[in-house]
Amino acid sequence: MLDSAVSEFKGIDKLTVVGVGLIGGSFALALKQTGLVKNIVGFGQNEANLKTAVALGVIDSYSLSMESAVKGADLVMLAVPLGAMASSLQAMQPFLEPQTIVTDAGSAKMAVIRAVESVYGKVPANFVPGHPIAGKEKSGVTAADAMLYQKHRVILTPLADTNPAAVELVRQLWLACGALVTEMPSHVHDEVFAATSHLPHILAFGLVDMLNEHKELGDIFQYTAGGFRDFTRIASSDATMWRDIALTNSDAVLKWLENYQQALRHMSELIQKQDGDALYKLFASAKAARDAHIVNKQPIQS
Amino acid sequence: MLDSAVSEFKGIDKLTVVGVGLIGGSFALALKQTGLVKNIVGFGQNEANLKTAVALGVIDSYSLSMESAVKGADLVMLAVPLGAMASSLQAMQPFLEPQTIVTDAGSAKMAVIRAVESVYGKVPANFVPGHPIAGKEKSGVTAADAMLYQKHRVILTPLADTNPAAVELVRQLWLACGALVTEMPSHVHDEVFAATSHLPHILAFGLVDMLNEHKELGDIFQYTAGGFRDFTRIASSDATMWRDIALTNSDAVLKWLENYQQALRHMSELIQKQDGDALYKLFASAKAARDAHIVNKQPIQS
Repeated sequence: MLDSAVSEFKGIDKLTVVGVGLIGGSFALALKQTGLVKNIVGFGQNEANLKTAVALGVIDSYSLSMESAVKGADLVMLAVPLGAMASSLQAMQPFLEPQTIVTDAGSAKMAVIRAVESVYGKVPANFVPGHPIAGKEKSGVTAADAMLYQKHRVILTPLADTNPAAVELVRQLWLACGALVTEMPSHVHDEVFAATSHLPHILAFGLVDMLNEHKELGDIFQYTAGGFRDFTRIASSDATMWRDIALTNSDAVLKWLENYQQALRHMSELIQKQDGDALYKLFASAKAARDAHIVNKQPIQS
Repeated sequence: MLDSAVSEFKGIDKLTVVGVGLIGGSFALALKQTGLVKNIVGFGQNEANLKTAVALGVIDSYSLSMESAVKGADLVMLAVPLGAMASSLQAMQPFLEPQTIVTDAGSAKMAVIRAVESVYGKVPANFVPGHPIAGKEKSGVTAADAMLYQKHRVILTPLADTNPAAVELVRQLWLACGALVTEMPSHVHDEVFAATSHLPHILAFGLVDMLNEHKELGDIFQYTAGGFRDFTRIASSDATMWRDIALTNSDAVLKWLENYQQALRHMSELIQKQDGDALYKLFASAKAARDAHIVNKQPIQS
């Protein structure tokens, strides 16, 4: 099914990547390998970065002018930080041709939609909100990797009046990158990823910061083991990106932070009461859920 | 230095492992490979498990009688769950010969010392409290691994009147297993590991349990990525062991749970106030601390 769908897809002539970092660069690299895109143009404000991207073969050329970058583009991939979405959309708006399809890779979809609305009044039919569930601790175009999206999920969150042909184009390109594409409403996306991604990142940053601030036990990190290293791996993620996510998806993030604090209060009470049965039940149920859903049944590599 | 110290060490004739699971079994396996222990006897209540341990070459023989198990032992390794320490010590007490050195592998040292005191009145000079910082998600003797302690820390927490020769014997055996041995007072140990190990485990169990209980978003786990899998890896740990740790090291665990909840309240406030500068500073400081202490400077493999 997927193979034949991909093989019927003819590809596009011009892709513009606005923000050539890990995410946009990996999208470009993966598509170059498929041969589905004739010409990939990068846009950004850091010329040295764009030169590196050309040297690495991530993009074919670059432009520092938004006008020439998006002129004649079949698709624009907006892969800038969440905090830069509104300004990028603003810069693009005067030059964007009506037939050009725009998609993005932001981790918080309601915030991107609000940014689009702030520029366009309403979300254009050719705007397809998207979010690839993939990343690395390393950021920047030098970390770009054609395999980054292989067997990873990409969530598209089209609105009721989004152009189905635009959604289909974006879907085909992500499939060609090896991704598994799922659709859901933006507000559901934001809830799901606040719980499964944004909250864990905040929890990990918070734990490392707390231990680093408590100096009374000396260099406490020297006693950490593999469990701690894995638990805090996401605390080595990009601070700017996660600040933007926390602030832009703040409603859902705050809700799940509150749910989690309630869970911690409950566990504290069980420990205080020395309620071993209830604590065992909670730990065992968590272990069973993780083993069932993550260890034994992970169809998607990530 | 270490090599010559090990080579001067003559080894022992009889080691008794009480509780032949992952921890005790890996200690036995590692020591067999060194040739420093002539005879390793396992004691436990599950004969099938002990037979498996013999079949796997983890122990030389087993006994279901504590009397014959500890008779003539140079060293007894108590590798039972924290919740079974007191009863194991009680069962051993009538038969233990005064020259036999006893050590343990419990993750909460004050609790073990209290268990020893409850049986002996005071901690015998030949009792050396210890804690190897190593583990796996899988437990049981079938997961035992001669390499488990290679380049891992082992913490010994001798008391003021612990026999220095007993400490040295235990130290030499752990060094022979490839471990790096550190000494610190029991109460410092319990604080350090409440913060760096017990708290993260409770946080991971709590997160998975919370997501599993909130059914309104469907099978939310299908959207998790590599970051979530690593963050929650320790939530696949043994529920009984972690219940015991949480309940036995409850003072230190509750203190750090409270510190952490304070950190979460602080981050919630920053998000509510949309204080991007402070949030960035906190995330960046956590990332810098983790990169400096864990990513770039991990002398100990774990």
